[in-house]
Amino acid sequence: MTYRPAHRLADIEPFHVVELLTRARQLEAEGRDIIHMEVGEPDFPTPEPIAEAAIAAIRDHKTLYTQALGLPELRAAISAFYGQRYGVTVPASRIAITNGASGALNLAFAALANPGDEWLLADPGYPCNRHILRTYEGLPRSIPVGPDSNFQPTPEQVSAEWNERTAGLLVASPANPTGTLLTLDEIAALANECRAKDGHFLVDEIYHGLTYAPSPKGTCSAAQEVPLGDEVDAPTACAAGDDIWVINSFSKYFQMTGWRLGWMVIPEPYVRDVEKLAQNLTLCPSTPAQYAALAAFAPATIEILEARRGEFRRRRDFLAPALEAIGFRVTARPEGAFYLYCDCSALAADSFVLARDLLEKTGVAATPGLDFGSNEPEKHIRFAYTTEIPRLAEAVSRLSAYFGR
Amino acid sequence: MTYRPAHRLADIEPFHVVELLTRARQLEAEGRDIIHMEVGEPDFPTPEPIAEAAIAAIRDHKTLYTQALGLPELRAAISAFYGQRYGVTVPASRIAITNGASGALNLAFAALANPGDEWLLADPGYPCNRHILRTYEGLPRSIPVGPDSNFQPTPEQVSAEWNERTAGLLVASPANPTGTLLTLDEIAALANECRAKDGHFLVDEIYHGLTYAPSPKGTCSAAQEVPLGDEVDAPTACAAGDDIWVINSFSKYFQMTGWRLGWMVIPEPYVRDVEKLAQNLTLCPSTPAQYAALAAFAPATIEILEARRGEFRRRRDFLAPALEAIGFRVTARPEGAFYLYCDCSALAADSFVLARDLLEKTGVAATPGLDFGSNEPEKHIRFAYTTEIPRLAEAVSRLSAYFGR
Ligand SMILES: Cc1ncc(COP(=O)(O)O)c(C=O)c1O
Ligand SMILES: Cc1ncc(COP(=O)(O)O)c(C=O)c1O
Repeated sequence: MTYRPAHRLADIEPFHVVELLTRARQLEAEGRDIIHMEVGEPDFPTPEPIAEAAIAAIRDHKTLYTQALGLPELRAAISAFYGQRYGVTVPASRIAITNGASGALNLAFAALANPGDEWLLADPGYPCNRHILRTYEGLPRSIPVGPDSNFQPTPEQVSAEWNERTAGLLVASPANPTGTLLTLDEIAALANECRAKDGHFLVDEIYHGLTYAPSPKGTCSAAQEVPLGDEVDAPTACAAGDDIWVINSFSKYFQMTGWRLGWMVIPEPYVRDVEKLAQNLTLCPSTPAQYAALAAFAPATIEILEARRGEFRRRRDFLAPALEAIGFRVTARPEGAFYLYCDCSALAADSFVLARDLLEKTGVAATPGLDFGSNEPEKHIRFAYTTEIPRLAEAVSRLSAYFGR
Repeated sequence: MTYRPAHRLADIEPFHVVELLTRARQLEAEGRDIIHMEVGEPDFPTPEPIAEAAIAAIRDHKTLYTQALGLPELRAAISAFYGQRYGVTVPASRIAITNGASGALNLAFAALANPGDEWLLADPGYPCNRHILRTYEGLPRSIPVGPDSNFQPTPEQVSAEWNERTAGLLVASPANPTGTLLTLDEIAALANECRAKDGHFLVDEIYHGLTYAPSPKGTCSAAQEVPLGDEVDAPTACAAGDDIWVINSFSKYFQMTGWRLGWMVIPEPYVRDVEKLAQNLTLCPSTPAQYAALAAFAPATIEILEARRGEFRRRRDFLAPALEAIGFRVTARPEGAFYLYCDCSALAADSFVLARDLLEKTGVAATPGLDFGSNEPEKHIRFAYTTEIPRLAEAVSRLSAYFGR
C-alpha cells in the first residue's frame, strides 16, 4: 500500500531535543558525565504518601475502569483544593480527570476546535500545543512574546491578531519555556478580550505550585532579596470567571509525571461534551494513578512538596545569577516552573549549534529555542533546574570554562 | 461566551448503557441485588505477578516519563510474545506502547485520517471506533454485518462499499459485541481487498487470548462437545502482512483495564509519524503500567491467565445454551471475548425497552443493541459473562421466570 499519512503530519514536528538526548545517551554510554538541564520533569521521586496510596489501591484490586470523567472522590478532592489553596469555588461536577495536562489539552481542542479555526498561542510556548491543535484540524496562530510583556500575550496583541476565523486563546501561567506568570488582573483582561470577541479562553496551570517569591527588580538576579519560604501562589484563572477552561496536572508540582494524570476545569455547558469525548476517546484515566492522587492533597504530602518547592527556589536563585555572570541574559522573569529561558545571543549566533557544542565539549545538555517556536529561537536556550545544586554548580563551572569566563 | 462546541460533537454519542448503569446503581443503593451482565471488563483482578511488578517499580521510583513509544524492554517483550505465541516475527521497532487500545486507535486515526475521508467499519461494532474517527474528522461508513458472514465484513462488501473517498477498513477479531473471529484466510482476503484499493487496513485484536474452542455446529450450544483446555488462539493479522495496523491491549486477556495500557503494531513507514504524534499528544504511556506489563508475559502470569480463560469458556458454555432455552437466539458464533450478542426479537419488540424492563423487574443488567450501531439494534441485546457461573445461573433463572419459561 502506498505510504500516505494524513496531511496533518506534514505540520507536526518531533521534539528536536530528542536528537540531543540520544546523543547525550551515546556519550554517557561512552563513559562521559552528562549534566541534564534539558529535562522537563522534577528529579524528585513521587512523594511517598502518593506512592503508598497507589500501592494500597493495587493490592486492593482497585484497577478497573472508572467513570470517564474520573473518580468522583478525586474530583471532589480537587474541588476542595481550589477552596483551600485559592479560596475559589469550583464544583466537582466541572472537573474532569484526564491523562495528564496532555489529555486535558486533547479533550479541550477536540471539544472546541473546528477545522480551519485559528487559535492564538504564545511564541515561545509549549510546542505540543500547536501540534495537538493541528491534530484536531485547528490552526495555530502565533503571538510573538518577549521581555516587554514578560513573555506573555497582552490583550492588545490578542485584539490585534483576532480575525473572523479566530476561535480562542490559550496561555500558560507559569509558562514553559519561560517560567513567567500572569497576574489575576492580566488573566482577567485577557478573559475580557476573549469575551468581547465571543471566543474561548484556555489557561494551562500545569506549573502551579511551582512558583517562587517574585523578584522585585524584574530579573531573578535579585531574587535572593526575598526570604525563602515566602513563596507566593500564582492566581488561578478559575477566579477570573467560570467560562474559562483551566488545565492542570499532577505531573509537575505533585511530581507524578509518568503516572499520566491531570485535570481540567470545564465551563459548565461543555461538561457533557467533554464527557462524551472522554467516554469514546479514552474510556477513563489511569485508575491506580487516580487512587494515588487521592493522597496528593494530604497535609503530609503537601509538606513534602513545599519543601521541594523551596529547593527549586534555591536552585533558581543559584543558577540565574550564575548564568548571567557567564553572559546569558535571563530576560524572562522566572517566577515559576523550573526553567530559565536565556538570551544567548551575546555568546553564540545559533542556540541550536551552541546546544550541540555544549553537549559535546562540556557535557551540559540544554534545550535550544527551536523546540518552542519560531520567534527568535536561535537566540534562546532553556536550562532546566531539575538537578541538584552541586550539579548545577558543576555545570556553571564547565560553562564558565567553555566561554572563558 | 456563547456555547459553541466543535461541530463534531453533534455526531458523538454517549454510551447509552451508562443511563442503565446509573439506574442500576440507584437500585443497588435501594438494596436491590443487580446482576451485572452489561460490563465489558473481566471480573478477575489484575494477576498478582503484574500487580507486584507495578509495586516494585513504584517503590523503585520508576515513575518518570518514558520514551513516547514506550519502554524499549516492553516493546521487545511484545515482539518476543508474537514470536512465541504466534510464530510471527514483529520487530520491536514497529511496536508502539499506547494508552490502551483506545490510545492506539486515536494514534492510528490521527496518523491516517484526513477530513472527509470515509472508513469502513462493521455494524454492529465497538461504538467508540466511529467516534474516535469522527474526532479526527474522518467519516465512518457502516458495513452491516449479520449471521450469514458471522458478523464480520466480507471482501465483497468491502469492495462494494469502497468509493473514491474511502481510505481504509477497520475490523476486530474477536469482535465486540459479537465475539466472532476472522480466520487467517479471511484476514488475508480483507487485506488483499484493501491493497487492491490502495487503502489502509486496521485490525483490532484486543480480545486476543480470550478465544475458546470453536463450536463445530455454528452456535455455541454445541460447544461442550470440544474438550475444555483445547482453546485455540485466533490468528493474528501480523501474519497476513507487515502493511497491516494491528491494535492490541493489556486490558482484557491481561486483565489490566484501569491501567490504560495497550499497543499497536505499525507498518514500518509510519513508525516515525506515530512517534511524532505520541510525543505531542500523550508524551508517553503510564510508566508504572509499563513496568507492570513487563511481568505480563512471564510463565507464572500466563498460567493464571490461561486458567481464567478456561473459566470464561465454562461460562460461555453454560450461558449460551441457557439463554437459547429461554428464547434468545445466539446468531453470532461466540468464539472469543466474553459477550453473547443475542437476537431477542422473538421475545421483545425493542431491546432498549427490554433492557430497561429486565433491569427494573429482574435486576439483570445487559446492554441493548443501540450502543453498537444502527443495524437492527432493537433486535439485539448483549450479555457479558464477566460474572461467575452461580450468578449467571441466578440471572438465567430470573430471566426464565420473567419470560415464563
Ligand atoms: C506547559 C505544559 N503543558 C502541558 C504539559 C503536559 O504535561 P503532562 O501531560 O505530563 O501533564 C507540559 C509538559 O511538560 C507543559 O510543559
Ligand atoms: C473492540 C474494542 N476495542 C478497543 C477497546 C478499548 O479498550 P482499552 O482502551 O481498555 O484497551 C475496547 C474496550 O472495551 C473494545 O471492546
